[in-house]
Amino acid sequence: MQVPFVKMHGLGNDFVVLDGRVSPLPPMDAALASALAHRHLGIGCDQLVVLEPSSVADFKARFFNADGSESGACGNASRAIGLLHGQPARIETLGGILHATPTDAGISVDMGEPRFDWDAIPLAYAMDTLTMPVGWEELDGPTAVNVGNPHVIFFTPDCHAVPMDRLGPIIEHDPLFPERVNVNVATVESRSAIRLRVWERGAGLTLACGTGACATAVGAMRRGLVDRDVRVTLPGGTLRIQWGADNRITMTGPATESFRGSFELANYR
Amino acid sequence: MQVPFVKMHGLGNDFVVLDGRVSPLPPMDAALASALAHRHLGIGCDQLVVLEPSSVADFKARFFNADGSESGACGNASRAIGLLHGQPARIETLGGILHATPTDAGISVDMGEPRFDWDAIPLAYAMDTLTMPVGWEELDGPTAVNVGNPHVIFFTPDCHAVPMDRLGPIIEHDPLFPERVNVNVATVESRSAIRLRVWERGAGLTLACGTGACATAVGAMRRGLVDRDVRVTLPGGTLRIQWGADNRITMTGPATESFRGSFELANYR
Repeated sequence: MQVPFVKMHGLGNDFVVLDGRVSPLPPMDAALASALAHRHLGIGCDQLVVLEPSSVADFKARFFNADGSESGACGNASRAIGLLHGQPARIETLGGILHATPTDAGISVDMGEPRFDWDAIPLAYAMDTLTMPVGWEELDGPTAVNVGNPHVIFFTPDCHAVPMDRLGPIIEHDPLFPERVNVNVATVESRSAIRLRVWERGAGLTLACGTGACATAVGAMRRGLVDRDVRVTLPGGTLRIQWGADNRITMTGPATESFRGSFELANYR
Repeated sequence: MQVPFVKMHGLGNDFVVLDGRVSPLPPMDAALASALAHRHLGIGCDQLVVLEPSSVADFKARFFNADGSESGACGNASRAIGLLHGQPARIETLGGILHATPTDAGISVDMGEPRFDWDAIPLAYAMDTLTMPVGWEELDGPTAVNVGNPHVIFFTPDCHAVPMDRLGPIIEHDPLFPERVNVNVATVESRSAIRLRVWERGAGLTLACGTGACATAVGAMRRGLVDRDVRVTLPGGTLRIQWGADNRITMTGPATESFRGSFELANYR
């Protein structure tokens, strides 16, 4: 069985998109997803995206990490899907319904409302102030927020000086986060500019994390560090994040198609 | 302009193959090769392979590293090309004419004759015994050989205990090797079995290096450590290496097609 796909990226965060809206796809599981995501033996990607029919939106999107685990939402992938769809779309995801709209400035995605309650993030138990993991004492007190998936954000004078390869996995697997967590280290540069690096749950350091940009922006806005319309610059490029009076987050940025192809399913089973 | 390609790998060493034998390809240069090789923004590969018509063989193969530099020969890529061609082929390369033959045990490639003379490897100057780089005193005296590209081989009781990340770059750039060198650390397990790890010039540690397997096998054969028909096991899998009475090396092993696709050239210019 030959399975067609589209390879896309948003700011270097890259996706293999399988479109099951027209013709049926093979059942997706962790083994197949991680085999396809392998950069030497498979197609190679940070996340695999499966599009399916939906009864509550225009279509449904499922996101699989490179380790095969399923993820609730992916901001960069939502922009890529918006580009692929070519017109405004309501997308059902595990993290809620997203709206993607092609604009002159890139693809705008309505990322929904942030959730700050401890059991929505989720944390392992209620706490007033997040405790500092060992070794992170030099960073400012963390903020935690769920924007479709769980994020913790540390504000620091120089985010590029933080040894993420060492600290990322420790924080990701801290028992405080029962569903693990995405780890953001951010530097506020002005009222309208943030610099950011993200250790993604199940993927490690990436060039750009869309939900991380949203989580970090609203975290900084809530603390009064920036205005409610900021540019967040990640290693892969810049996203514009707006937090509206209706409490909804809008992310705008580029998406690109890298190539199209097909693979023989039997080679990956 | 849509450009078709095939993505392949040999023991996890992966290639994007552009076939210009039938229809013309865009001119290849370092910028385009490295853009296509980028694992997030491009197609992603260790090496880009361009097939062209030849006046002296069945066709010509050019090999570009991920950094855009052109390479003389690649054993794993030659097996992949042999699989793609589907019948015995004489392949013109910068490193000489290679012969690839599909067999029941995989693709067999005639890798030509090894060269042990100091100026063919090349070394910076003539020497009877290779000097030991600082820090490598615990390893057996090195062997140097050219099998289309320059290799140095260290035999050690446990090649997996060698800190290649640290020592590989030091040896690769030692002034003894004016064209740099591929660094092999090998453990002889029996008269017919060698275990091998390779630090590749311009690429770092890889899952498998075909010319490294050839260089290490003939190095061990010349010292009388193994017979002239051995299996060399790399992290990515196993290759059979034979050194014939005619002084030619034959490498036999698997190659796999991962997927096929096409890209829009304008996106990579």
